[in-house]
Formats: sequence, C-alpha cells, structure tokens
Amino acid sequence: MIKFEVLKKHSHSSARLGVLTTPHGKIDTPCFMPVGTQATVKALTPDDLESFGVQIILGNTYHLYLRPGHELIRSLGGLHKFMNWPRPMLTDSGGYQVFSLNELTKVTEEGVTFQSHLDGSSHFISPERSIEIQQALGADIIMAFDEPTPYPADISSTEKSLKLTTLWARRCKESLHSDTQALFGIVQGGMYPDLRKKSAEQIIEIGFPGYAIGGLSVGEEKNLMHDTTAYTAPLLPEYKPRYLMGVGTPEDLLQCSSSGVDMFDCVMPTRNARNGSLFVKGGKINIRNAQYKSDPGPIEPDCPCYTCANFSRAYLRHLAMAGEILAMRLLTLHNSTFYQKWMASIRKAIEEDIPFNLDWSNQTEPG
Amino acid sequence: MIKFEVLKKHSHSSARLGVLTTPHGKIDTPCFMPVGTQATVKALTPDDLESFGVQIILGNTYHLYLRPGHELIRSLGGLHKFMNWPRPMLTDSGGYQVFSLNELTKVTEEGVTFQSHLDGSSHFISPERSIEIQQALGADIIMAFDEPTPYPADISSTEKSLKLTTLWARRCKESLHSDTQALFGIVQGGMYPDLRKKSAEQIIEIGFPGYAIGGLSVGEEKNLMHDTTAYTAPLLPEYKPRYLMGVGTPEDLLQCSSSGVDMFDCVMPTRNARNGSLFVKGGKINIRNAQYKSDPGPIEPDCPCYTCANFSRAYLRHLAMAGEILAMRLLTLHNSTFYQKWMASIRKAIEEDIPFNLDWSNQTEPG
Repeated sequence: MIKFEVLKKHSHSSARLGVLTTPHGKIDTPCFMPVGTQATVKALTPDDLESFGVQIILGNTYHLYLRPGHELIRSLGGLHKFMNWPRPMLTDSGGYQVFSLNELTKVTEEGVTFQSHLDGSSHFISPERSIEIQQALGADIIMAFDEPTPYPADISSTEKSLKLTTLWARRCKESLHSDTQALFGIVQGGMYPDLRKKSAEQIIEIGFPGYAIGGLSVGEEKNLMHDTTAYTAPLLPEYKPRYLMGVGTPEDLLQCSSSGVDMFDCVMPTRNARNGSLFVKGGKINIRNAQYKSDPGPIEPDCPCYTCANFSRAYLRHLAMAGEILAMRLLTLHNSTFYQKWMASIRKAIEEDIPFNLDWSNQTEPG
Repeated sequence: MIKFEVLKKHSHSSARLGVLTTPHGKIDTPCFMPVGTQATVKALTPDDLESFGVQIILGNTYHLYLRPGHELIRSLGGLHKFMNWPRPMLTDSGGYQVFSLNELTKVTEEGVTFQSHLDGSSHFISPERSIEIQQALGADIIMAFDEPTPYPADISSTEKSLKLTTLWARRCKESLHSDTQALFGIVQGGMYPDLRKKSAEQIIEIGFPGYAIGGLSVGEEKNLMHDTTAYTAPLLPEYKPRYLMGVGTPEDLLQCSSSGVDMFDCVMPTRNARNGSLFVKGGKINIRNAQYKSDPGPIEPDCPCYTCANFSRAYLRHLAMAGEILAMRLLTLHNSTFYQKWMASIRKAIEEDIPFNLDWSNQTEPG
C-alpha cells in the first residue's frame, strides 16, 4: 500500500512538500510523472529516466490492454518487470483513452463498449474490468474507472457523468482486493464549482488512499483550469495525495502546486521534444528554427542533461531536420530533465518557504 | 597521419592481427566500422558506441555535404566535434552515393554532376572537390573519389571505369595537403581478375598509406565477392591497411578477414536492427515473429549488451510491433555489440592461431 506524509506547508500558498511511499519506493512531492503509454516513456530507457531523477512513471491501461495485452504482461511478471522499471508506477483506468481515441463508444451503467483504435475490434470495459486489467499490470497506484466530462458540457450532462463516475468509483473499490495496490478516486464535475463539490463529497465518502482531479486540460481556458483546480484541491482530504490528471505546462505545474496539488502527469515534455519544441527557462524554443543552424551552444548552458553536456544546438537542429532517431532521444532527454528540475525547484521553494513567482515568462526559478 | 603495424599473422589463413594508429587513437584490426551516415550512427549516441568498444566509425561525405553542409561542419570545428565523437573516423568520398542515390548523373573526366536526393538541386563533385569536402569534415582517414563499377558490367566498361578511378586517385592525392589526414586509394576492376590486378598496380604506383577494395557487395553472388576479395587482397602491400568497402555479413567478415582484409564497414547491423532482424550466434532471428510474443529470455543469453542484460524478447517484440522509438535503439545496440564481439573473436582466433571455422551456420565462435 501507500503512505503519504506532508513534510512542510508553504506559508505563501496552499502548496505542500510531501513524501509518498509505495511498495516500489518513495516519491518526493509535488512530482511530475513522465507518461509511458506503451510500456516505454517514448525514446527513453529506464536508465535514462533514473539518470535525471524520475521517481514514478505512468502507464496507460487502454494501450497496454490492447497491445500487448494485460494477460501477457501478467504472465511475464507484471508491468514493472516487463519494462524493467524498478521504481513506483501509476496506471490510469483506461477511461480517458476509451473516450478520446474512439469515435464510437456505447456507454451504459454497466460499462463502455468501444472499438480498438488499432484494428477496429470491439471491446468492453467496466469498472470491474478496468481494475482486473490494472491488477494484471500491477502498478503501485491504480485509478478508478470514470467517465471524463467533455468540454464544453451543460450542467445536466455534467451531473449525469458525475453520478456515473461515483457509481463506478464504488464498484472499483469493491472489486479491488490487494495489499499492494492503492486505488485513487477521481473527482469530476466539469467547470461547475457546485458539481465539483458534490463529486468530491461523494468520492470522499466512498474513501480512497488518494484523490485525483479529472476532466481538466480538455480544451478549457487556462484560467478556468487553474480556478477549478484551486477550488477543488482544498475540498480533498488534507493528508491524502492529490493528483491533477493530464496537466500540464511548467507554468501549470507551478500554479497548481500552489493550489495544493501533489502529483502531475502530461505527455507535453516528451511529445513536444519529438516535434523539436524544447523547454528552456522562461519559455520554449523550436530547435528546427533556422536561427540555430550554426549555433555552437547547448540548448541551455547550465542544464545538467546528457544532451546539453554533449551537443550543440546546431547538431541537434541537424538531427531533427534529418529526421534522425537520435534527435528524438536527445531532445526528450532534455525536456524530461527540465520537468524534473522544475519540480525540484518547486519543492525547494516550499522547503525554504520562498514565495512562488507565478509569472512564468519572466522567471528563471519558481521561487 | 596513420601508422599500421601487423602484430601477428594467422598460420591457417591470410588473416593478420594489426593495430592502426590515427591522430584520434588506435584501432585493433581486423575491425568493423559502424556507419554514421548523417553524423550519427542511427539511434545511438557516442556513449553507446564506446560502451561496446567501437574504435572507429564511418561518415558519409555525400550526405554531410548536402545536409548540413561541410562548411557548416568545418565552422563548428569538424565532424568529430560536431557529433561529439572523440575517436578515429573515416569518411568515404561520396562517389558511391552519388551513383547509387541518383538516377541522373553526368560523368566527365572532370567529375560528376548529380541531383540531390533531398531537393533535386544540381551539384558537381570532382576528385578535388571530394578532398576539399573531406578536409572540411576532418576525418582521420579519407577516401579517394572513384567511379564504382556496377554489376554486372562488361569488360570494356569496367576497364573504362578503372581508368577513370586511377586518374581521379592521382588527382585526389595531388590535391590533398594535410599532416593529419590519411588518404586511401581504391582498387576497382569489377569481377575481372586481370582488371583487379591492373587497378591494384596503378593505385599502388600512385602510392597511398592504405588501400581499399571497392565495387564489391553490389549484387554479385557471395562466392564471387569472396573470390574477388581473396584474389585482390594479396595484390596490395602487405604492411598497409586493407579496407573492404561496404561488406558485410558476419560470415563475410570472417571469410574476408581470412583473405587478409583489415577493415570493414556495412549498414547491415544497424539497418537490420531497425527492421527487427537480429544477429545471434550462427544466424539471425526476427524479433517481430509471433514465436517471441511471450518469450521471457533475452535475445542472446550470454550477450553483454544493455538490451540483453535488461529486456526480454517479449518486451522487445512488443516495442517493435508498436513502432516505439526505443525499439530502434535497443535492437541497434544488440546488433552493433554483436558485430564488435564478432570482430574481437576473429582477432582472438588470429592471436591464438586457432583455425577459423568458416561454416557460419554451425558455429558459435569464429575460431
């Protein structure tokens, strides 16, 4: 199971410094979890991830269920062993991908019928089935199967979705029998504060060792996401971990840490890297830009990543323009290192109780 | 410049154990040079290459001239610095790619006019221009600009090509003024022993610090390639390095080492890896094959590579089937390690004067 300790509270915001202990090790929070969709954080090895301090990664149940199949992974000793990742891991429930990667889904109270995005074959996932799959995968933290509310959504469909999410959360909890896996509940409720409150109350009443805020970063305006997070986070139990799903930019991580969120995940650092878009202090650069053609400097002069220590912008631009596989790895290494460094800076600011500077565009450090 | 020492001769074949010293370090021979076409051995970092003992890599002048351009590489300190490879390097002359990657080439005694395979733009490369480009790149060993003879080719066109190659070899030598770069001459002559002999005599008469056998592995039968190598290698000076260009399979490396060849290069280990085709003792396997779906073992049980030490065939198959970038790196690591191990075994057999076992399909070690 897991244990969560709040080590220190930020006096300038609702941020907290914590440590989350799982069967596979400890995680300093607030933390960012790189996304390992298909049993790999794209372009990186487990050694790479450990080299820049990743303590927990996320796996996608939907993808792994379809390919290579959760039973295969179970038979090979679980996802940790399959991908040779010895540290903590979280799997999502598959709910988000079932809806976002399929045009034709049929939702009943029982569960969701959908077509595989790989071959069109028909599948059914219920709360019980999601838990069964996640038990086969064996992550330290698993997620309740929910119906993410799209954006925009009117109040009545949002409430309907919330009710289903509560119903399914209860069934998820009832179907899990494990001494090692911790199940997190998910709060929905769209952009309606009253519904967020209602959802939080219902999910808390069921009772989980950790709580997630779902249904954000789905197309709404930035301020609405930040406001909804700031409203929802304090509704959750103070001494349980809070996970904001699918968020976000470095600015978002800082802003939402200040609202009391402990855990984040997002494909942004890895996906952006593959398109040549790189995070640097206070902004982004695209390495494919002609201005870097003969630039002998590293992406960031004081970055500790392997890429910045060894290669020039000119070389990286060349690799990216030539479509070389090595570009994917080197650029992903940089962005992923950036995100881990960023979270470490946020934790340091909380530890030293320095006010956050929330204007990302002008800052070099969060504190 | 370079220095070549023959340390030991194999009493069971014409193989020799040697050491080639260049401004960037030493190379144990017979050696295999991984191909770094676009300033990267595809999917690998310099650290990867050093991890399994690579002592020299090859760069492709044609590709680097077109993208990012040799003047850019010169301005950034040369190819070694550009790609952060601190060890010996060889560049080809561009001749082979000019002909193999272009359908429309115009050859005169002066040089070759061709269209870029990237954007169709028109370019001209002469022997002098090839040397100029290779000087900008700055490899330890550079190659004479030749006209590779296609296969099949009649005796008259082969002889014509041979004459042009000799003429161009002389101009290459005359245009090179360097204390650090060693220029190798190339023997052509197709599959005609008399023409191979003639070409060797002419190229030796011009005089180079090393000699290559070109125009093989271009579609001819295996035996013809082996026989032509076995015939040509002893025509070359005994105490100069001999380089067989673009060859080949592990079996070819063994066979041609036994004919007295010291250096090899080929895209096979890296290209095959990207297609899932992996070298194992005595043969090949394709990791995409369904038989590996739930195979918990490594590619090869006693292989020291990072991939075999950490991942199962089942996992690698999954990555390959899912088109994951990580598959490219992990499979390339294995094949490239295999080739370096294979050359080390060949060197050991020469050192210990053990007869080669030339039946690749039944063997576990060359000796």
